[in-house]
Amino acid sequence: MLRIALDMDDVLADTHGRLVEIILRDFDTSLTEKDLNGASLRSLLHPKQYKKVVSVLNEPGFFRDIPVMKDAVEVVKELSGYYEIFVASAAMEFRNSLIDKYDWLDEHFPFIHWKNRVLCGDKSIVKADYLIDDHVFNLVNFSGKGILFNAPHNLEDTRFDRVMSWKEVGERFLGNSRERV
Amino acid sequence: MLRIALDMDDVLADTHGRLVEIILRDFDTSLTEKDLNGASLRSLLHPKQYKKVVSVLNEPGFFRDIPVMKDAVEVVKELSGYYEIFVASAAMEFRNSLIDKYDWLDEHFPFIHWKNRVLCGDKSIVKADYLIDDHVFNLVNFSGKGILFNAPHNLEDTRFDRVMSWKEVGERFLGNSRERV
Repeated sequence: MLRIALDMDDVLADTHGRLVEIILRDFDTSLTEKDLNGASLRSLLHPKQYKKVVSVLNEPGFFRDIPVMKDAVEVVKELSGYYEIFVASAAMEFRNSLIDKYDWLDEHFPFIHWKNRVLCGDKSIVKADYLIDDHVFNLVNFSGKGILFNAPHNLEDTRFDRVMSWKEVGERFLGNSRERV
Repeated sequence: MLRIALDMDDVLADTHGRLVEIILRDFDTSLTEKDLNGASLRSLLHPKQYKKVVSVLNEPGFFRDIPVMKDAVEVVKELSGYYEIFVASAAMEFRNSLIDKYDWLDEHFPFIHWKNRVLCGDKSIVKADYLIDDHVFNLVNFSGKGILFNAPHNLEDTRFDRVMSWKEVGERFLGNSRERV
């Protein structure tokens, strides 16, 4: 059975969307939602404001309260019938994210066994056939086939196959077999 | 550079030793320290008492307060000059262990970067050339070369090369190069 590793932030979880919500609510900015979804936050925000974003990521609870990406639960559930599914999140940068990510997975993806969950730093340590991730630097380090999940901070990249949504992930990995499910 | 993945419990950390201490102090048992170091706790203890051990593992703080294995810090520091070192701990079974293990590494192995730390479940996800681990089931699942770190629960196994101590790990992986350090 082929193994697919799935990133969490901006792949399973709409982390960017949650940050945009917080920026529009709490930051002193003239940027609109459309602006904030059009490029990386690092490139759009003043360095001081970007630093504030990083401090939000460090807050206990932040990663506990993120919406699930559209169609992710249904498609991952379907994929589980045909592939070995692992979640592999680069969580080690943010100490407080560990428990939040654990609990978030328990709530939204309880069917992914604890044996199939990985909190890591560098994704070169992940042994899988595929990695679906929004960060090009993760895919570059990965030894299997990398699939780029579309996100505001990777719009320009052409080095990896791109998927626009979970619906497209389903089509790519399940194809016709879908009708059998 | 070859990559070595290191397990935490009973490899970097003397988890068994800490459990023996707790059992001798808090459990109603006639077993001695020597008995408890002579076989797996699961085989030695009454099932009810073993269940109590598992509940100790689940307590917040347990994994924060474990002694470092003799010579581990010095040898891992030396190894870091010649190998890419990752820590890979099967922590996902115990939710409360995540932060404790993170903080424990920060205290005792601050020179191992967060990018090189992995909290996982099944070790088949770990991509490395070597894995030093006390659990045969982890080594069986691992795709590289497995090295068994001697522990009371693996004394009978002959399937993997065995190391008795960190001193022996140093000799095996550094050999003569050690004199150059």
